[in-house]
Amino acid sequence: MASTHIFTAFDDDLKFLTRRIAEMGGLAEQMVSESVRALVNGDVGLAQKVISDDTILDLAEREVGDKAIVTIARRQPMAADLREIMGSIRIASDLERVGDLGKNTAKRVIAVQGTGVPRRLGRGIEHLSELALVQLKEVLDVYTTRSADRAVAIRERDEEIDAMYTSLFREMLTYMMEDPRNITTCTHLLFCAKNIERIGDHATNIAETIYYMATGAQPEGERPKDDTANTVGAVTE
Amino acid sequence: MASTHIFTAFDDDLKFLTRRIAEMGGLAEQMVSESVRALVNGDVGLAQKVISDDTILDLAEREVGDKAIVTIARRQPMAADLREIMGSIRIASDLERVGDLGKNTAKRVIAVQGTGVPRRLGRGIEHLSELALVQLKEVLDVYTTRSADRAVAIRERDEEIDAMYTSLFREMLTYMMEDPRNITTCTHLLFCAKNIERIGDHATNIAETIYYMATGAQPEGERPKDDTANTVGAVTE
Repeated sequence: MASTHIFTAFDDDLKFLTRRIAEMGGLAEQMVSESVRALVNGDVGLAQKVISDDTILDLAEREVGDKAIVTIARRQPMAADLREIMGSIRIASDLERVGDLGKNTAKRVIAVQGTGVPRRLGRGIEHLSELALVQLKEVLDVYTTRSADRAVAIRERDEEIDAMYTSLFREMLTYMMEDPRNITTCTHLLFCAKNIERIGDHATNIAETIYYMATGAQPEGERPKDDTANTVGAVTE
Repeated sequence: MASTHIFTAFDDDLKFLTRRIAEMGGLAEQMVSESVRALVNGDVGLAQKVISDDTILDLAEREVGDKAIVTIARRQPMAADLREIMGSIRIASDLERVGDLGKNTAKRVIAVQGTGVPRRLGRGIEHLSELALVQLKEVLDVYTTRSADRAVAIRERDEEIDAMYTSLFREMLTYMMEDPRNITTCTHLLFCAKNIERIGDHATNIAETIYYMATGAQPEGERPKDDTANTVGAVTE
C-alpha cells in the first residue's frame, strides 16, 4: 500500500515536469516565430511582447529545477527514473536559452527600426527560422514518445540548418560590401541569423538528452557537421 | 556516531564539488585569455588547443552534475546545504558556457587567418577581455568566500563591460564603412567581442547564484544596464 502511494506521488511529479516542459517548448517556439515576424515586419510592439514573455520562460525553468530537486531529495529515484528527472533539468535549460535567443532577435527589431530589413534577406531569415522551428517542434514531439531512434535522426538534421546559415552569412557579407549603408542593418541581421542557427544546436542538445533518458548512454560519434561552414568562414557552433 | 559519519561524507561531497568548480573556473579563464591571444597574434595552433580544451570543461560539467544529483539522492540535504548543491550545478553550467564562448572565438582565428586583425581593434578586444576576465576571477574568488555583499558588488560591474562593448561595436562598424575589404574580418571580430561581452553576463549569473547560495533569495531589482548600448544599437544581453 505504502509503495503504491509512493509510486503514484512520483508519477505525479514526473507528469508535472513533462507538462511544464511541453508548455515551455510551446512558449519558446512562439517567441522564436514572433521575433522573426517582428523583425521582418518591423513590428516593435510584437518585439516588446517577445521580450516580456522571456520572464515567463525564466520562471518556468526555475520551477522545473526546483521541482526536480525536491523530487530527487524526497523520492530518491534510481536508474531510468533519475535520468528522467535529470533530463528534465537539462531540457528546461535548453528551452530557456532558446527563449533568450528569441529575445535577443526581438531586441534587434528596435535597432534596425529606421532602415527596415531588405526583402531578400528577410526571406532568408524566415526560411532559416522555419527549419529551426521544425527541428524544435519535432524534438518536442520525440520528447513525448522518448524514442531513442527518432532522437538520433533529429541530431543528423542540424547539418541542414548549418548549411543554410552559411549561405545566408555569405549573402549578408555581399550586401554589406555592395553598399556601406547596409552595414549596420546587416550586422544585426547576422546576429539574428546566428541566434537562429543556435536554436538548431539546442534542439540537437535536447535530442541527445532524450537519447540519454531512454538509454542511459550518449549517442555515438561526433555531431554531424557541415564542413563548408568553416571554408567560407561562417563559423557554426 | 552515525550522524557524524553522514556529516563527514556530505562534507566530502561538497569539497569535491567546490574543488571541481574552482578547476573549471581556472580552465575557463585560461581558454578565454588564450583564445584572445590566439586571435590577436593569428596563432592557429593555440586556437586549436583552446578548441580541444573545451572537451575537458564539458566533461567536468557533467561530472559536477552527476555528483550533485547522487549527493542529493543519498544525503537528502535541506535548506542551505541543498542550495549549495543546486548552486554548484548552475555555476558549472555557466562556466561550461564561458568555455564555449572561448572556443567560438578560437574557431574564428582560423576564419580571419588570411587578413589578420587590425591593431587598434585587436587592442580593443584585448581590453574588453581583460575586463571580463577580472570580473570572472573576482566572482570565482567570491565563490570561495560565499560573501553575499561582494556578489552584489560584482553584479553592478557588468555595466562597464557593456559600455566598452558598445564603444567597440561602434568602432568596428566605422572600420567596415571606411573600407569594404574590412567587412569579413570585422564581422568575425564583432562576434568575438559579443562572445566576450557574454562572459560578463555569465560572471553576473554566477554572482547571483552565490548570493542565492548565501541567502536563499535572489538579489533585489533588475540587473544594472548600460542604456547607451541600445541607443547606438549594440544590443547587449
